[in-house]
Amino acid sequence: MPDLDLVVKEIAEEMRQRPDRGEVATYIPELARADANAFGLAVIDADGNVALGGDAETPFSIQSISKVFTLTLALGKAGDLLWQRVGREPSGSAFNSIVQLEYERGIPRNPFINAGAIAVTDLILSGHQPREALGEILRFLQFLADDTTIMIDEQVAASERATGFRNAALANYMKAYGVLSNPVEFTLGVYFHHCAIAMSCRQLAMAGRFLAHQGRNPSTGRSVVSPERARRINAVMLTCGHYDGSGEFAYRVGLPGKSGVGGGILAIAPGKASIAVWSPGLDAAGNSHLGRIALEALTKRLGWSIFGA
Amino acid sequence: MPDLDLVVKEIAEEMRQRPDRGEVATYIPELARADANAFGLAVIDADGNVALGGDAETPFSIQSISKVFTLTLALGKAGDLLWQRVGREPSGSAFNSIVQLEYERGIPRNPFINAGAIAVTDLILSGHQPREALGEILRFLQFLADDTTIMIDEQVAASERATGFRNAALANYMKAYGVLSNPVEFTLGVYFHHCAIAMSCRQLAMAGRFLAHQGRNPSTGRSVVSPERARRINAVMLTCGHYDGSGEFAYRVGLPGKSGVGGGILAIAPGKASIAVWSPGLDAAGNSHLGRIALEALTKRLGWSIFGA
Amino acid sequence: MPDLDLVVKEIAEEMRQRPDRGEVATYIPELARADANAFGLAVIDADGNVALGGDAETPFSIQSISKVFTLTLALGKAGDLLWQRVGREPSGSAFNSIVQLEYERGIPRNPFINAGAIAVTDLILSGHQPREALGEILRFLQFLADDTTIMIDEQVAASERATGFRNAALANYMKAYGVLSNPVEFTLGVYFHHCAIAMSCRQLAMAGRFLAHQGRNPSTGRSVVSPERARRINAVMLTCGHYDGSGEFAYRVGLPGKSGVGGGILAIAPGKASIAVWSPGLDAAGNSHLGRIALEALTKRLGWSIFGA
Amino acid sequence: MPDLDLVVKEIAEEMRQRPDRGEVATYIPELARADANAFGLAVIDADGNVALGGDAETPFSIQSISKVFTLTLALGKAGDLLWQRVGREPSGSAFNSIVQLEYERGIPRNPFINAGAIAVTDLILSGHQPREALGEILRFLQFLADDTTIMIDEQVAASERATGFRNAALANYMKAYGVLSNPVEFTLGVYFHHCAIAMSCRQLAMAGRFLAHQGRNPSTGRSVVSPERARRINAVMLTCGHYDGSGEFAYRVGLPGKSGVGGGILAIAPGKASIAVWSPGLDAAGNSHLGRIALEALTKRLGWSIFGA
Repeated sequence: MPDLDLVVKEIAEEMRQRPDRGEVATYIPELARADANAFGLAVIDADGNVALGGDAETPFSIQSISKVFTLTLALGKAGDLLWQRVGREPSGSAFNSIVQLEYERGIPRNPFINAGAIAVTDLILSGHQPREALGEILRFLQFLADDTTIMIDEQVAASERATGFRNAALANYMKAYGVLSNPVEFTLGVYFHHCAIAMSCRQLAMAGRFLAHQGRNPSTGRSVVSPERARRINAVMLTCGHYDGSGEFAYRVGLPGKSGVGGGILAIAPGKASIAVWSPGLDAAGNSHLGRIALEALTKRLGWSIFGA
Repeated sequence: MPDLDLVVKEIAEEMRQRPDRGEVATYIPELARADANAFGLAVIDADGNVALGGDAETPFSIQSISKVFTLTLALGKAGDLLWQRVGREPSGSAFNSIVQLEYERGIPRNPFINAGAIAVTDLILSGHQPREALGEILRFLQFLADDTTIMIDEQVAASERATGFRNAALANYMKAYGVLSNPVEFTLGVYFHHCAIAMSCRQLAMAGRFLAHQGRNPSTGRSVVSPERARRINAVMLTCGHYDGSGEFAYRVGLPGKSGVGGGILAIAPGKASIAVWSPGLDAAGNSHLGRIALEALTKRLGWSIFGA
Repeated sequence: MPDLDLVVKEIAEEMRQRPDRGEVATYIPELARADANAFGLAVIDADGNVALGGDAETPFSIQSISKVFTLTLALGKAGDLLWQRVGREPSGSAFNSIVQLEYERGIPRNPFINAGAIAVTDLILSGHQPREALGEILRFLQFLADDTTIMIDEQVAASERATGFRNAALANYMKAYGVLSNPVEFTLGVYFHHCAIAMSCRQLAMAGRFLAHQGRNPSTGRSVVSPERARRINAVMLTCGHYDGSGEFAYRVGLPGKSGVGGGILAIAPGKASIAVWSPGLDAAGNSHLGRIALEALTKRLGWSIFGA
Repeated sequence: MPDLDLVVKEIAEEMRQRPDRGEVATYIPELARADANAFGLAVIDADGNVALGGDAETPFSIQSISKVFTLTLALGKAGDLLWQRVGREPSGSAFNSIVQLEYERGIPRNPFINAGAIAVTDLILSGHQPREALGEILRFLQFLADDTTIMIDEQVAASERATGFRNAALANYMKAYGVLSNPVEFTLGVYFHHCAIAMSCRQLAMAGRFLAHQGRNPSTGRSVVSPERARRINAVMLTCGHYDGSGEFAYRVGLPGKSGVGGGILAIAPGKASIAVWSPGLDAAGNSHLGRIALEALTKRLGWSIFGA
């Protein structure tokens, strides 16, 4: 097998030189300011070896990647009852589509489209104050990454809220069907804030390790979820993690992954490694352009596709 | 690792005893006559060991499972140009939905929904006579399974054609957008016939081996497709192989798979085995009820999920 | 021609005796309390003759009938620029559907579905305080009906707001596309309040007279809108006034009309009369069950259908 | 009232001089050859006065205008049972949309979209040979227009059939739901042929007279349908006669009308006149551009809008 550290550095260098960078998201000023030339990659293997390339230590807005962790947390609280509020099928639609909600009585197709993630957030909140729920989410991420410096970017959260009318539409629509239990503004407040968490590639890859290793952190040995639940979260990531670009990601990269509009992607090579990549320029489907290309190169060179060596 | 033969026999016995059998398809008399008590399972591992359970040697109508093989054949002919006529994203819709075609100018979402498979068949036909194209498809399956006794059930084909108005609607709709090149009745004729191929679980598992082993038949060493293409076909099977039940299959079974309305499922454990299961009773989503349950048991006991041991 | 007063009294009596009353709306307690046995009918002809039957003097919640008057008011302010924010085609969908908004970039199909009426309310608000806009709407109705006792039922308005999540979804969705200019909660506040205006059949028929008579009140001679605008509002009422039951209303009644979930219907017989009917029980499409039947009887007996005597 | 003949001649002259002519349909060569400069107008009033302007005697392909007459004929045969196979609500969709059929189990929204008209044709056919059914339709039109020279343009019919894949999709889709009773190719054959009937504006206005005059031809006194049925056909024309441009036609013209892709429009001024206009250039919604403008001018000058003088 090729040397992991070498491959990571090679890919980071190749990405840095590419002229095609995608388009940085501009819907809020905090994201619009991101440097289109930034690129980071972090891979942590089963033995705890950390391979870093490029801007792997620079924090960025994880945005929708947070949905993997809120799903994990909510499953811990609600168990499989969660699936009464959210489906687990690919939607065939954009991340913020509301059409499917109308045809399916307010039940979002899966926990990774916006509507589904809002419903998951509502389950975490379940009667608590927004501040408490948010604290719990943040502490969970700090625990997973073993890093208490992880923070919420309050400016990003405020901007998300100020422009988040489409998410407000989704939340109100689900509320009309009784899919949300808490006041809409509470649920949305927690949602906008957990999307505004800032992490580096290294921190994100650390936080994702339990998904690669049967639900346990292989360094500490601490169990986060059961092996079966880890497999199942990976399955949902594979089929639904990139909205209406999920098929493309599976086809090209061949790993469970979750993207965020901030340009990050968390990818899991089961049994092998937790991977985080970041480059702010997005492709037409709203996923990190170079992030996806880098992951495709990585799985090909290391033979890590779950669909065959 | 548990003994493969033992696990297969155990599962076949468990399935035989279950009272829940699903509902046999009734839209044509040939399928309606199927024995709801039938159950077969065949697993062929990397070393060529064949483990059979239940009615693993009984031929059944493979129906939509044929779409995996026609996709493979069409990719061999058209290469990646195929993807200009067919997408590779999950549809979020039923197998025979026409709505998505209208919104996306006649381009089917993926090669495993009916519309997509018809478009793939049209590519194989490409100017030839239906009889020739059909012969090519049949010979390809005979070659893959190393078994020249595999045949088309003409009665099934005739019944499919006599009742296939919805498929005729899909085909005519695509023809209106220029997605089909051949006369509609030619393409439909070949499509109805390749869906009517009859195979046993053993034959089907044999035919699927190249997908589990980097595109090659590990016994003969003969290459069918490149390793990358085998991975990619597996990826499309995982995200799209069970229509709007694809997420569920990935969540529960954790293998690329393709189901047919005759009650068969072909599943691939990359690097490990090719698997075929058959039980005619279907669940609400039109997939084999016991077939899916058997595969879930199999992957759990053998630790074969692609999403983690 | 039959005697108007006699026909009105006859129909009121027939309706009172019918056992089929439809289902009273129950989504807010104020509407749920309505008496299913109530029935009122008021017809005011070109000469100002007022024919009353049943509970024609009992105030009820006019709900969506208010949309006719807010459209008239908004056209007076914005002119035909209004049609840049709202279409004028039947939607083919339910009153509160959001699907069409997604496919048409946030532009509602017509001013009589909820989304369209919210967009119209936003135009009336246009920078003013909600209280001012609401006062303007109320005064407009009082002017049209020549009756300053017309009031808003604040309890109804409060209940509408407390349960109006689906309308909040529509409003936020349009806000995301820039179709609304004011803060969402301002626009919704005014919307919920003008739907909560209470009027009797007599008051409503008075208020609708300008639509029957070339835009003028034939008693006072005062012009409200141009003849062309009156015709055009009538046309939109006919094609869009009963949501996905508009075709049925045109087919059976043959008059422009607008229904409300409180059980009222305003109907216009151009050149002949302004008509208001009220009975709280609704049919499956959410329109007054006996109201529609009464109007069908009325137009048939008087030969008032716009589609031929 | 202005002189009818004068108004018709004026409008014909105005239309002839306009530089904007719309776009002639090009999907079959026979329509593509039409002269974009052609314009004809025929109005026949209650007293039988015939006012002609421009190319009012030139035959053109009536296309979808035939649907008014097949609906009339089918109602005569099946009565209100017809409405079990076809709805009477505006569709909110394009003339050839298939989406609505999927959501509503194969029942077309109304008899004037293609799917609905095909279902109506199937009712006329009801077990007979296509040739007989077609003969019946043609004789009905010859009877209505009192003109045995009206013919089918066989070249147009052949071209329609050769390119009619989308109509074939609609027909097969309805057949799958049991909405069609006859062989698909029989029903489509009759449909393509009755759309290929050629008539002049004068002939068309003659044929439409019964709709303007309570179901009777006022010259001969012969009854075609009951007064109620005439009103109801007019109502369906108003709400559904111009596909997703029906609201616009009602708003601007204010008469029941039915357009055809050949550039013709039949419009009915109840109690006043039957009107036919023809100009081959179409607007974006597929309706005659100058035809609609001419009708708007006509109703305005004569005060014929059904929505008020």
